[in-house]
Amino acid sequence: MPNDSILATRLQAAASETKELLNRLLSATAFEGEFVRPSRLLEAMRYASLGGGKRIRPFLVIEVGRLFRAPLHQALMVGAAVECVHAFSLVHDDMPALDDSEERRGQPTVHKRFDEATALLTGDSLLTFAFDVLSRTETHPDPAVRIALVTDLARAVGVGGMVGGEMLDIASEGRFDDSGPLSLDESEVTTLQLMKTGSLIRFACTAGAILGNAPPAAREAIARYGQAIGEAFQIKDDLLDLEGDQQIMGKPVRKDDLKATFPRLFGAARARERIEALVARANTALDSLEADTAMLRTIARFLVDRSN
Amino acid sequence: MPNDSILATRLQAAASETKELLNRLLSATAFEGEFVRPSRLLEAMRYASLGGGKRIRPFLVIEVGRLFRAPLHQALMVGAAVECVHAFSLVHDDMPALDDSEERRGQPTVHKRFDEATALLTGDSLLTFAFDVLSRTETHPDPAVRIALVTDLARAVGVGGMVGGEMLDIASEGRFDDSGPLSLDESEVTTLQLMKTGSLIRFACTAGAILGNAPPAAREAIARYGQAIGEAFQIKDDLLDLEGDQQIMGKPVRKDDLKATFPRLFGAARARERIEALVARANTALDSLEADTAMLRTIARFLVDRSN
Repeated sequence: MPNDSILATRLQAAASETKELLNRLLSATAFEGEFVRPSRLLEAMRYASLGGGKRIRPFLVIEVGRLFRAPLHQALMVGAAVECVHAFSLVHDDMPALDDSEERRGQPTVHKRFDEATALLTGDSLLTFAFDVLSRTETHPDPAVRIALVTDLARAVGVGGMVGGEMLDIASEGRFDDSGPLSLDESEVTTLQLMKTGSLIRFACTAGAILGNAPPAAREAIARYGQAIGEAFQIKDDLLDLEGDQQIMGKPVRKDDLKATFPRLFGAARARERIEALVARANTALDSLEADTAMLRTIARFLVDRSN
Repeated sequence: MPNDSILATRLQAAASETKELLNRLLSATAFEGEFVRPSRLLEAMRYASLGGGKRIRPFLVIEVGRLFRAPLHQALMVGAAVECVHAFSLVHDDMPALDDSEERRGQPTVHKRFDEATALLTGDSLLTFAFDVLSRTETHPDPAVRIALVTDLARAVGVGGMVGGEMLDIASEGRFDDSGPLSLDESEVTTLQLMKTGSLIRFACTAGAILGNAPPAAREAIARYGQAIGEAFQIKDDLLDLEGDQQIMGKPVRKDDLKATFPRLFGAARARERIEALVARANTALDSLEADTAMLRTIARFLVDRSN
């Protein structure tokens, strides 16, 4: 297996190349001819998407893409689109109507740094921009490949994916039910997490396989890998939130006291068991591939061993 | 020219077929297999999109599509996608962070009927669903046509289109400027309206031409037509709002007192002049087409003569 320093180097490269690309795609000159007057909107889109983050999702597009010989630039374009979706979801989730968070990555959230109206429209335009980026010939010359990416992203984000998962999440707090927070069983919490976080991580993985024109069986194996690490990633996040140290995380911890997270409902020990089972499942999915999957296995391990 | 009763009959048919299609696309069974648990979200998406509206935009897709022999079902699919975007924009614009409207089409707005969190997520999922619908083979068998629709819709909605226009609109109220509402000149107000309303109406028109595989010159003529009637439609809306009767409109009138609308800034008389100039421009754009454009001319007239 590649060691952690190779992973760290590649992750760092993916992060800086993604940021550079986003910086170009979201520059004011990129919108000339479309008379972009709302400079505040573009400024907020840049604030939300360029400000940091680990860029795990673009890294997954790149590494799965590498496995199937997808050109790096294509993977970076898809990674940039995925980061726009990720940023959209954070901006809207942080708003007072949802999680009401004041900080994100140690900085004021968009509605605190700007205002609620700007945050709402910033999320809307980042989500829209993701589809714009996916539809460009720069992303892939074949329209059939681009439309496959659009279909999969729309499914990953919509009512059966990330947005639906957020809805289940707030419903689980009991907001719409006078009897208080709902008691979810393990499979219900798993469904919620798969929708809310897993679906976009799975998309990042399958997008790499789509770009590389992987055969159907390989795409399915990658989807199973993506789904397993997506769920594991979220449980690890929730574990860190439960146990973490505010300084390391750069955000207030234990904010999820009301949320239906796996560790909160079933305890840290069972959460760690579940994480190990998911890593094993991810590795099993990779067993069917003929390519060298060592880096993807290292990534699975890394995602659940990280300390922030 | 076709008389108004033919137009009324066709508009009515377009509206009922669009509603029927949206009802099918947004049925719970349509999402089976994607484990749709958030029934409240689907319910709110249906409330926002099935509840009424004149369905002008799908009608435009259908009538332009007819000119270029696009199959009706393809036009209806695109029309349904456009209505999802239209509904998304109304749901978000009505929220307290933006226009803070309590009623829409005589009914409570989504955040009043449900709640703010649900309204936010409902808009997000309707916007996403529009791209889902456009990307389906049911919309067009050729991926190149579908991706052209995705590109154009993303541009019509994003930072250079509808969402950017809404941002300019609230900026013009002076929300981000201590010195109060901005004083916009005629060309700035026109830019704002073109982005906020015109871009989606133009998309509805050009989408019909794309579906019918119209040659580039014809697409450009249709785009000019769409842009002109889009602007005229908005000025007429603002005129009705300024002069209208609350019972007829089904919403509180004069809510736009702070907004940079053409009639408010430049007066009703100049607004009516501008509308006539735009109708003439729309008709001139159609002159270059060889097909029978009588119905499109009747529609342009209808959009600016309507009383609600």
